[in-house]
Amino acid sequence: MERPRAVLLSQGDEVLTGQTVDTNAAWLAERLTDLGFDVVLQMTVGDRLDALVAATRQCFEAGEVLICTGGLGPTQDDLTSQAVARVLDTELRLDADELAHIRALYAAFGRTMAASNEKQAWLPATAEALRNDWGTAPGFSAEHAGSVGFFVPGVPREMRSFWDHRIRPALLRRFELPGERLRTLRCLGIHESKLATLLKPFEDVDGMVLGFRTMLPENQVKLRFAPGVSAEREAELVGAVREAIGRSVFGVDSGPVEAVIGELLAEAGETVATAESCTGGGLSATLTSVPGSSRYFLEGACVYANAAKARTCGVEPAVIDQHGAVSEPVAIAMARGIRERVGATYGLGTTGIAGPGGGTPDKPVGTVHIAVATPDDVLHRKLRLAGSRERIARLTIGSALDLFRRHLQGRTDFVRTPA
Amino acid sequence: MERPRAVLLSQGDEVLTGQTVDTNAAWLAERLTDLGFDVVLQMTVGDRLDALVAATRQCFEAGEVLICTGGLGPTQDDLTSQAVARVLDTELRLDADELAHIRALYAAFGRTMAASNEKQAWLPATAEALRNDWGTAPGFSAEHAGSVGFFVPGVPREMRSFWDHRIRPALLRRFELPGERLRTLRCLGIHESKLATLLKPFEDVDGMVLGFRTMLPENQVKLRFAPGVSAEREAELVGAVREAIGRSVFGVDSGPVEAVIGELLAEAGETVATAESCTGGGLSATLTSVPGSSRYFLEGACVYANAAKARTCGVEPAVIDQHGAVSEPVAIAMARGIRERVGATYGLGTTGIAGPGGGTPDKPVGTVHIAVATPDDVLHRKLRLAGSRERIARLTIGSALDLFRRHLQGRTDFVRTPA
Repeated sequence: MERPRAVLLSQGDEVLTGQTVDTNAAWLAERLTDLGFDVVLQMTVGDRLDALVAATRQCFEAGEVLICTGGLGPTQDDLTSQAVARVLDTELRLDADELAHIRALYAAFGRTMAASNEKQAWLPATAEALRNDWGTAPGFSAEHAGSVGFFVPGVPREMRSFWDHRIRPALLRRFELPGERLRTLRCLGIHESKLATLLKPFEDVDGMVLGFRTMLPENQVKLRFAPGVSAEREAELVGAVREAIGRSVFGVDSGPVEAVIGELLAEAGETVATAESCTGGGLSATLTSVPGSSRYFLEGACVYANAAKARTCGVEPAVIDQHGAVSEPVAIAMARGIRERVGATYGLGTTGIAGPGGGTPDKPVGTVHIAVATPDDVLHRKLRLAGSRERIARLTIGSALDLFRRHLQGRTDFVRTPA
Repeated sequence: MERPRAVLLSQGDEVLTGQTVDTNAAWLAERLTDLGFDVVLQMTVGDRLDALVAATRQCFEAGEVLICTGGLGPTQDDLTSQAVARVLDTELRLDADELAHIRALYAAFGRTMAASNEKQAWLPATAEALRNDWGTAPGFSAEHAGSVGFFVPGVPREMRSFWDHRIRPALLRRFELPGERLRTLRCLGIHESKLATLLKPFEDVDGMVLGFRTMLPENQVKLRFAPGVSAEREAELVGAVREAIGRSVFGVDSGPVEAVIGELLAEAGETVATAESCTGGGLSATLTSVPGSSRYFLEGACVYANAAKARTCGVEPAVIDQHGAVSEPVAIAMARGIRERVGATYGLGTTGIAGPGGGTPDKPVGTVHIAVATPDDVLHRKLRLAGSRERIARLTIGSALDLFRRHLQGRTDFVRTPA
């Protein structure tokens, strides 16, 4: 099917000086694509009126939908309303409702609105105001050249709320879009190329569009269903795709793997502790990034020095002497040792050579051992990773979490799907 | 002075579908700005020849310099050479040197070049090849409409090498740029607005351009010197700006604060251990992200549960009962306890309420205590932070490292500057 075209425009010198990485553009691009749009152009321009007018005109003409972020603040640099008014060949007009709303916001915080903030309520006369319930600057939408444009603040938190509550609903009303029904299968421990091969048979299924997204080490499979597909058919297809991928799926429309692990542990009343070397605390930081993780995360040990491995995890110095700190016996002893010391249900251990120094012909940089100690046994995996110190740590964390959740999900033989 | 204009063009559907955050654009924008260019436009277009031709033409016309990333691979989607040839009104021509180089690269890896790779050596006839010493796809530069364009691979590692070794030197030859002499003062524990006020007197210094960059929680002051400024005058101005900011400067042209801390510890033959609660291991992960940190980082404890604080840091349960786990006495006991347990020169402790749950009227979300135990005393600081769980953890890590480096630098009364 022919997809409607969408265009993204970012305004602000801070992007063009490299002060800010424009995460808004990627965030919006992903959501527009998920919804069924074809994003054909993204532009960033600075705080100059003539450049902004030209870019706005170009973007309106390049797609059926334009989303512009930034340039709605109270300062002289904020020129979006002015530029759009010029493109629409209209005047700026004070929107009394929006002005009253801004005033009320300030009053609620016990402050008086600065005179400069009035500027934010001057909108193009033919535009429709979009109420900002998450900050002071109103957004607005406008029609031009047969297209619709949405102009919203560049603050990511506000921009995202505008998308959820103003833009997305408006797009669903205006266009026939398949992406209203997006299902995401989240996978660990499988390569994108393997996924693509496994899912070849699903490439030409009527009413379903297959997409991939890689967020190292995770791979996501995205299924978008056309409006005509029944709920039963959708469930059947999601099930078939999941079946084709197998155990590498850790969740459908779920949170990240650390959240899935957290839910499983909390439900079972179980706990976990970590002992890390090459990941330096990154594994415990990932597990505790989940709100409420204090219910099941008891203690983490970053046992960098060999003495620390002995002191805190009870790793026998003789084992380190015999096998080296980066070895299967040490990873296992770390996982077992921290589990016993802390009295947790599970212990996770990581040890490896993250580089750039420290490699040997026998154990080159990227050699990593991970282990999961359970009440009954220990799982171990050896990894050969490539790349920077940061990348090796990140992949080690992902692999350890993957090994752990495979154990947890294997026991329950269950892939979480929300109701 | 009037700055030459630069334009950035990214090519690739993966950016427009939100698959990839375009970090290349921000990376290049920062370096172009540092060098003295005015980046006036950034565009991203997908894998369509007509769109790419139009965008390339527009970018050549919008600035004196164009840098285009992506679209140089061996597949059908990679259309940059073709698009540029059309803009230059020329043909594609097989570059025998580049073809030989690609073949040699494959041979060096014991592989045969695929036929499709020959495509990468077909460059616009009037372009100049730029040798790729970091991958297979050659880049090229071309002149059009009085401007120069550089076309390089989109793989960040290769793109950065092209910048360092091909583009930057060419720009320095072609333009009179002040940014050849950029000095960066890295600051922690000071707000951008405070910095701006302190440095007002330096706004109109002849031959020096003052800039700021925020990378929460760090703030950087960038000084760009015009070619006419002598080395003595440059040193004098850098010294004066450093003096004006004071102890908040942790380095001039240095690495990040964890690297500065690492150098100070390694030189003094001293060691450190960490005990973390609300930062969940992120503090030890940051300290150990520095290559060679095993010289001074001994052990980290992520003592999330109260029992863990007692077990590993010797925090008396009575102290937790009396003051709560998030309190000055507990932060201090954690720092002291881990220092003693591990036998390190220094112990760092963090405890706080990262949210979103767990706050009380007395101790709202964002209440954090950090402590540094030294051989002689303990430093403590209470923080009131706002924002997400992730942001509170990040700011706590930054504050703990700042407190620690202030102690280390106070002793030596020395801000590192490379020779």
